[in-house]
Amino acid sequence: MKLNDINSPADLKKLQPGELQAIADELRTYIVNTLSTHPGHLASSLGTVELTVALHYVFNTPDDKLIWDVGHQSYSHKILTGRREAFSTVRTYGGISGFPKMSESPYDAFGTGHSSTSISAALGMAVASRMQGNLTRKHIAVIGDGSLTGGEAFEALNNVGLSKANIIVILNDNGISIDKAVGGLDGYLTRITSSPRYNKLKEQVWQRLDTGNCLRRRSRGLFQRMTRVAKSIALGSNNLFESLGIRYFGPVNGHDIVKLTEILNRLKNINGPVLLHVVTRKGRGLKQAEQNPIVYHAPGLFDAETGERTLSNSATQSLSHPLKYQEVFGHTIIELAEKNPAIVGITPAMATGCSLNLMMEQMPDRVFDVGISEQHAVTFAAGLAAQGMVPFCNIYSSFAQRAYDQIIHDVALQRLPVVFCLDRAGLVGDDGPTHHGVFDLAALRPIPDLTICAPMNDHELRHMMYTAQLPNHGPIVIRYPRGSSVFSDWRVPMEEIKIGEGRCVREGSDVAFLSLGHPGNDALTAAEELEKQGISAAVYDMRFLKPLDTKLLDEIASREFRKIITVEDGVKIGGFGEAIESYFTEHHPEQVSRITVLAIPDEFVTHGSVAQLKADCHIDKEALISAYYND
Amino acid sequence: MKLNDINSPADLKKLQPGELQAIADELRTYIVNTLSTHPGHLASSLGTVELTVALHYVFNTPDDKLIWDVGHQSYSHKILTGRREAFSTVRTYGGISGFPKMSESPYDAFGTGHSSTSISAALGMAVASRMQGNLTRKHIAVIGDGSLTGGEAFEALNNVGLSKANIIVILNDNGISIDKAVGGLDGYLTRITSSPRYNKLKEQVWQRLDTGNCLRRRSRGLFQRMTRVAKSIALGSNNLFESLGIRYFGPVNGHDIVKLTEILNRLKNINGPVLLHVVTRKGRGLKQAEQNPIVYHAPGLFDAETGERTLSNSATQSLSHPLKYQEVFGHTIIELAEKNPAIVGITPAMATGCSLNLMMEQMPDRVFDVGISEQHAVTFAAGLAAQGMVPFCNIYSSFAQRAYDQIIHDVALQRLPVVFCLDRAGLVGDDGPTHHGVFDLAALRPIPDLTICAPMNDHELRHMMYTAQLPNHGPIVIRYPRGSSVFSDWRVPMEEIKIGEGRCVREGSDVAFLSLGHPGNDALTAAEELEKQGISAAVYDMRFLKPLDTKLLDEIASREFRKIITVEDGVKIGGFGEAIESYFTEHHPEQVSRITVLAIPDEFVTHGSVAQLKADCHIDKEALISAYYND
Repeated sequence: MKLNDINSPADLKKLQPGELQAIADELRTYIVNTLSTHPGHLASSLGTVELTVALHYVFNTPDDKLIWDVGHQSYSHKILTGRREAFSTVRTYGGISGFPKMSESPYDAFGTGHSSTSISAALGMAVASRMQGNLTRKHIAVIGDGSLTGGEAFEALNNVGLSKANIIVILNDNGISIDKAVGGLDGYLTRITSSPRYNKLKEQVWQRLDTGNCLRRRSRGLFQRMTRVAKSIALGSNNLFESLGIRYFGPVNGHDIVKLTEILNRLKNINGPVLLHVVTRKGRGLKQAEQNPIVYHAPGLFDAETGERTLSNSATQSLSHPLKYQEVFGHTIIELAEKNPAIVGITPAMATGCSLNLMMEQMPDRVFDVGISEQHAVTFAAGLAAQGMVPFCNIYSSFAQRAYDQIIHDVALQRLPVVFCLDRAGLVGDDGPTHHGVFDLAALRPIPDLTICAPMNDHELRHMMYTAQLPNHGPIVIRYPRGSSVFSDWRVPMEEIKIGEGRCVREGSDVAFLSLGHPGNDALTAAEELEKQGISAAVYDMRFLKPLDTKLLDEIASREFRKIITVEDGVKIGGFGEAIESYFTEHHPEQVSRITVLAIPDEFVTHGSVAQLKADCHIDKEALISAYYND
Repeated sequence: MKLNDINSPADLKKLQPGELQAIADELRTYIVNTLSTHPGHLASSLGTVELTVALHYVFNTPDDKLIWDVGHQSYSHKILTGRREAFSTVRTYGGISGFPKMSESPYDAFGTGHSSTSISAALGMAVASRMQGNLTRKHIAVIGDGSLTGGEAFEALNNVGLSKANIIVILNDNGISIDKAVGGLDGYLTRITSSPRYNKLKEQVWQRLDTGNCLRRRSRGLFQRMTRVAKSIALGSNNLFESLGIRYFGPVNGHDIVKLTEILNRLKNINGPVLLHVVTRKGRGLKQAEQNPIVYHAPGLFDAETGERTLSNSATQSLSHPLKYQEVFGHTIIELAEKNPAIVGITPAMATGCSLNLMMEQMPDRVFDVGISEQHAVTFAAGLAAQGMVPFCNIYSSFAQRAYDQIIHDVALQRLPVVFCLDRAGLVGDDGPTHHGVFDLAALRPIPDLTICAPMNDHELRHMMYTAQLPNHGPIVIRYPRGSSVFSDWRVPMEEIKIGEGRCVREGSDVAFLSLGHPGNDALTAAEELEKQGISAAVYDMRFLKPLDTKLLDEIASREFRKIITVEDGVKIGGFGEAIESYFTEHHPEQVSRITVLAIPDEFVTHGSVAQLKADCHIDKEALISAYYND
């Protein structure tokens, strides 16, 4: 049987364990070949091929519930569960999602995208099964060592320990989150994995596992205590998971597929919560990806034979073309930090993604990768700011949702001058609804004492970063999108911007476009097209969502524009456009009929190219032009 | 020296260790006497009297940074740091805060209120000190075992373990969060505390502590490893904190003040992160509070001599007077759960506060107190809902900020029918800015597929709860305030409310009041007063923030009201009033000049009585009346 014959896990179950590795090898090749021309999350999925085959071989999915934490490692799972043909459409508009998605397949037991949710969801399902009288269904959460540092995972483990639920936590330990894993937990896992004494003992425990389960209840309790003590002594230390009341097994080689199926078959017969520690190699099977799993986390196009990445023009020409916004951030914070010794950088596990890795190389003591822990990142920044430091806390917009309370309670309420740089704000494209950074403007606007701004281009980003690190103001949010900024000569001298001051970037008389951030460039292009049609369009880059430049708004209200059209790459409800509507309602009510708000409508936006999604949401250049003509 | 002579920790330091208990006794009496007539958080503060005296005696506050997690246990700290006289004003309007507050005193190193932030903040400060060249300053986080279950605390511990920062975590273990502590962590702490073998060994470790620190670097490493192994063997298990790279000491009796000062003096000389496990008794020194720490967490008025609580009329007359909203919730969910076996209740450590304790008594298997872990609570609910259960997830509004991402990512995006009951929504009064539930409406409104409603009274709460558990809809948020509801005959038959349908509760022709939730009662009273002045006011209880009843709004727009006045107990920005403004701007622009929005202005609201704060915010009955007359 070949991969092509496997249309569901039922087909897989027809094989002997010894035949599974061949399927795994085919899977790996299929993933590499497909992703070489259809970019996606490569390294994580290569690391879990054997584990995925073993899980579907041993368990009775979809009746048994299988939840992939984060979910970017679930490509093998998708291919084995009826989506082999569709796999080439992964992450494309109209195609399958890059993450598990309940509406896509019954095998996707729970949708993921953000980290550290799987154990909570699995526990909910396990409790539901028990209450519904199903005592045999298994509920499996596969979670990476990186995701395990997210606080929610610990909250869940603390609750799992007490429950008698049938839950199996598979700890997929590859020592990497997206950047290198950090923190005490990582050191702990390494110590377990590398203890020869413990590993020898472990073999004996495995061998007795079947016996142990045949013992009567009382003897079993004794057996469990014995193995726990034995494990503890052998490790010369302790077991964190057993501290919490969860039976720990492992570590086991996550690429030994026969061994994995044996162990999973044994664990299947244990009632109550267990954790299996599986050691995998991120990027397994593709040399470059194994050697550089950070770059090959999502490598873009590459050669399937050699593994070499196909670098785009802009990447090879480097600093002479417009950089990505993240790169402008990465270079600019170094410039600022060289002059201002109070500046430090903080990232929750996205050092490369946000380009803080550049500063990390030059000033390793002044950048803190705190692991996947957005909540801690923000309060940690607050603590630093309380003692006179100027922390730049860089978080992807959609992940900053995790720290909403900390932004309110620890930072804004105390007016601590933390600089939040929210990368990946707006529509992010292929990653889809879990990752679009579209709620930040609306969610943060109600928070008192918070300044919120968005740069229209790389020059503005630099000016805003410069301004944010000056003394005597409260917390500031600077949010900017994924992808390329605007100018080639990005390294302009930095200037202070007056907090709350917008600017007119193009004069005009028939229509006023009011933009916030990067969409201002679409407004400029739209204005140029309208000019060809004899219509004079002004463009106001408002810069600040909060405080609003009410002086500029008053001036706009006093002009004879036929239309006032706002545009933003965030949700309409509660966002920039509604802020303008509210201001006009209260101060220029006679003008409100001229206002049109272009923003993301009240629905979750799917995955696809940013251009396609902007068109769907009516926030692109065309939408600006037609908003002028529409009534 | 008496308590009256102690105006700062410097005065305390003049005493001998043997004299400290007398001060502690005085402190305890002072707290009991004051709180008997000025209600506040009693039991937590009684548990930490000795610990607080010892900390200020040993450490050099405020240069050493002392951070109280949650902060309701910080009354002794306030009294010892210059706020003895002011203490009788605690939690009153214009008086001192019930929580540490940076702007109130340099001794309040970091403001708290929500749980599990202290270690992150202390780590930020410790890193700042080190970067600023201060290698001797100590940074102390005092955190309860309940708060330790919050995910952020674990995120912080994971980072503390790696750092070499001078941070001392004091684990204040009283086995209670606010309700009884739950989860694997609690069981683990109990096992440590009660192991005689371990406690014997511990004594030897303490005795060698000074010696250990005099050893040279290499020997010290060996000594540390030895004690770690010894601890592990003695415990027959393991140590969770040492797993994470944090040196663990304890447990120690938190009421033995001399011993505490000795141990703290030793720990002071250890560089790098340490954790001291202190066992205290919540309510210590007041019999009733020791016996019933849940009730005496915040007992209201009581007799300082006997400890007996002074029950208010409404409490003694019980079910014949209007109940609190929380009680209506607590009784109603039982009624619903008796008929609908899919209903379960979830609370993150607030079973008594939200009245789920009632259901817990009757249906113990159907209520889940998940400990302080709002993130887990929400995803756990999502998991239950994914398997056909109907979870009522009850979270205080301001604590739900912790689960903002989970509400978006795990619930709304998957349209899972979780019922969120947000208690303590709106202004909560004495607890102040950290606890006001004023951001929920604005923060949740932008989330697609979420229904958001607020009951005007107990009858409406029952109807909304009934409606929420019916099949075939997505997630629903029902938010209601702290305190008393409206009717004595609260137990009316429950009726389905059409999702998104508001209602006119009073006809009128001159002015329309549009309200959401409980403030509708102020609108009714204002309408009655206006009637006496010859003005006819209509009152529309809109019920749903989302979806808005646009049909009703169209009807209101078509009427000849001179004014349309909205009122809500949430922040103005992005809230109910702005939703109305936006709808009118887009659909009835000619009418917007009639709109006045009454909502909480763009600033953090202080503590004080709800009536006072409503007046300050201009959202009370008087504000409604004067909004009619104002232009």
